Amino acid sequence: MSRILSGDRPTGALHLGHYFGTLANRVRLQQQGHELFVVVADYQVITDRATPGAVRDAVTSLVLDYLACGLDPDATVVFAHSAVPALNQLLLPFLSLVSVGELSRNPTVKQEARQSGRRAVSGLLLTYPVHQAADILFCKADLVPVGRDQLPHLEQTRSIARRFNERYGPVFGLPEALLGDAPVLLGLDGRKMSKSLGNAIALSDPPDVVAAKVRAARTDSERTISYEPERRPQVANLLRIAGLCSGTEPAALADEVGDGAGRLKALVTEAIVQFLRPLQDRRARFDAADVHDVLARGTAVANAVADRTLAHVHAAMGFAERRHTAIRTSSARSPGPR
Amino acid sequence: MSRILSGDRPTGALHLGHYFGTLANRVRLQQQGHELFVVVADYQVITDRATPGAVRDAVTSLVLDYLACGLDPDATVVFAHSAVPALNQLLLPFLSLVSVGELSRNPTVKQEARQSGRRAVSGLLLTYPVHQAADILFCKADLVPVGRDQLPHLEQTRSIARRFNERYGPVFGLPEALLGDAPVLLGLDGRKMSKSLGNAIALSDPPDVVAAKVRAARTDSERTISYEPERRPQVANLLRIAGLCSGTEPAALADEVGDGAGRLKALVTEAIVQFLRPLQDRRARFDAADVHDVLARGTAVANAVADRTLAHVHAAMGFAERRHTAIRTSSARSPGPR
Repeated sequence: MSRILSGDRPTGALHLGHYFGTLANRVRLQQQGHELFVVVADYQVITDRATPGAVRDAVTSLVLDYLACGLDPDATVVFAHSAVPALNQLLLPFLSLVSVGELSRNPTVKQEARQSGRRAVSGLLLTYPVHQAADILFCKADLVPVGRDQLPHLEQTRSIARRFNERYGPVFGLPEALLGDAPVLLGLDGRKMSKSLGNAIALSDPPDVVAAKVRAARTDSERTISYEPERRPQVANLLRIAGLCSGTEPAALADEVGDGAGRLKALVTEAIVQFLRPLQDRRARFDAADVHDVLARGTAVANAVADRTLAHVHAAMGFAERRHTAIRTSSARSPGPR
Repeated sequence: MSRILSGDRPTGALHLGHYFGTLANRVRLQQQGHELFVVVADYQVITDRATPGAVRDAVTSLVLDYLACGLDPDATVVFAHSAVPALNQLLLPFLSLVSVGELSRNPTVKQEARQSGRRAVSGLLLTYPVHQAADILFCKADLVPVGRDQLPHLEQTRSIARRFNERYGPVFGLPEALLGDAPVLLGLDGRKMSKSLGNAIALSDPPDVVAAKVRAARTDSERTISYEPERRPQVANLLRIAGLCSGTEPAALADEVGDGAGRLKALVTEAIVQFLRPLQDRRARFDAADVHDVLARGTAVANAVADRTLAHVHAAMGFAERRHTAIRTSSARSPGPR
């Protein structure tokens, strides 16, 4: 059994793309008995956020989505990294192990910098790969589920672990990539499924919303429905969504539909609604207080783990670890009112 | 009464330059009843360090120097920032408030980058001004004693505080510079006093070491000793050191010496030895266990203050603060052995 680190930035409601891309895999890993840590990377949306309170609400919604998908807080540690100071403190020693040039060349940093357009690149964005290394290494994860495009990120974490060990002695294992073979689920318009593109089915969408979204999807002018991804990408994409949701081959679904875009959309809607029903039933059994509990429990575990890792790190570096030492005298001064 | 933040990087034994430049002032401020926080910036020497354990020893020696100078741990909070996770965590929200360009233009970063020569600039060095802002703002210091050349550093901290307040509401005051009029004490060779230049009298130097160092100092070929800083810089510098140590005008000391470099050096040695004696007597009354106690007490206060500030920061940003929340269920999972 491995310790596996996974996580998300709390940027909004999770959708089918997230489910089939990562969440289904997490639930599978949990069921196989692996020890799963799921980090809610709430600091990493500071640049995106609009109003105070938005992050808190996004975190709550994200954890409800986790519970809806079947992540079990008795088996999986769910926590927000902002609530784990020792994890964040690892940023400091790790920053000493990377060069500014290396950070500037990171593909995600470059891409986000391009997307942010005229806005200056913030220190938070530049140091993001190091913060991600802290998210992964604080719990000494063995495996990190990633897509192929994310391999360079994990390599930065492995570099930091390797350099730390070379300089100070063996503290960190080198986390391995758990390369997923998850199908790429496109949105209703054939582009990557994304909330901001308006082409996503959220896991929390009620049946009428699902129906309206599918109804608005474009198909083509051929009457008979067939699964021909190259020639008929729009129809094929709807069939693929329905196929994933119902566990059926898209071609078989096309035969089932026979003729008519209307019949196709009815079938797709039904497949999604049926698929989402158990998730939404589960979600309805939880409220904000449950989310609070899940995070409180996960945070307690994450802090215990992070405190221990930071103590290892300090011991290896020859720092005294004083936070938990007993105080000999009783005259410790209280901080006094400010 | 103000809250004042001051501190040092633990880079080696403190010397007379430190004493007259900053330490005497700190003791004065403490005696005036101000609330003093003294941060030992141990993370900021990671790049300099040679072997594990060096930092710990340097911290111990630094705190012994503090005690020798008269810093009173019952009145002053002395702590190493590596032992205060919530202080370090402030780095994350603060990093979102500064641009990479701004960090690259910081004078200290540029200077250190130049001095480090061929070595690549580390992420730790680039983000150093933000870490310094965390050192200052975590305790909501009103005043920071600085030399005139350090004003740009404090301005970066003030910018971060201002931007945070503008974005999230009033959490931080803007710390003011406490500009010192401390005399610049040059080393025995007339250059800036610095351990690495080998021209410094350490506060812990025993009398025979002081005598040997002064004996090796260069003077000039004129027999009669006079205080003429422009024309006779080497002699004037020795007279100034003796003057500061004995509280006497350099010119008066020159008259007292009369003729001969040997007599001058005997007088300078005597002035330094007399000055250092009470400091060294005080230092001899403390040992490593006392240092441990001082730091444990200071760390406890600093952590309480930092935890509170981080909670303010999170509340203003609309983050939930979960570290200290009660756990409703009792089934919190223990981290298990790794």
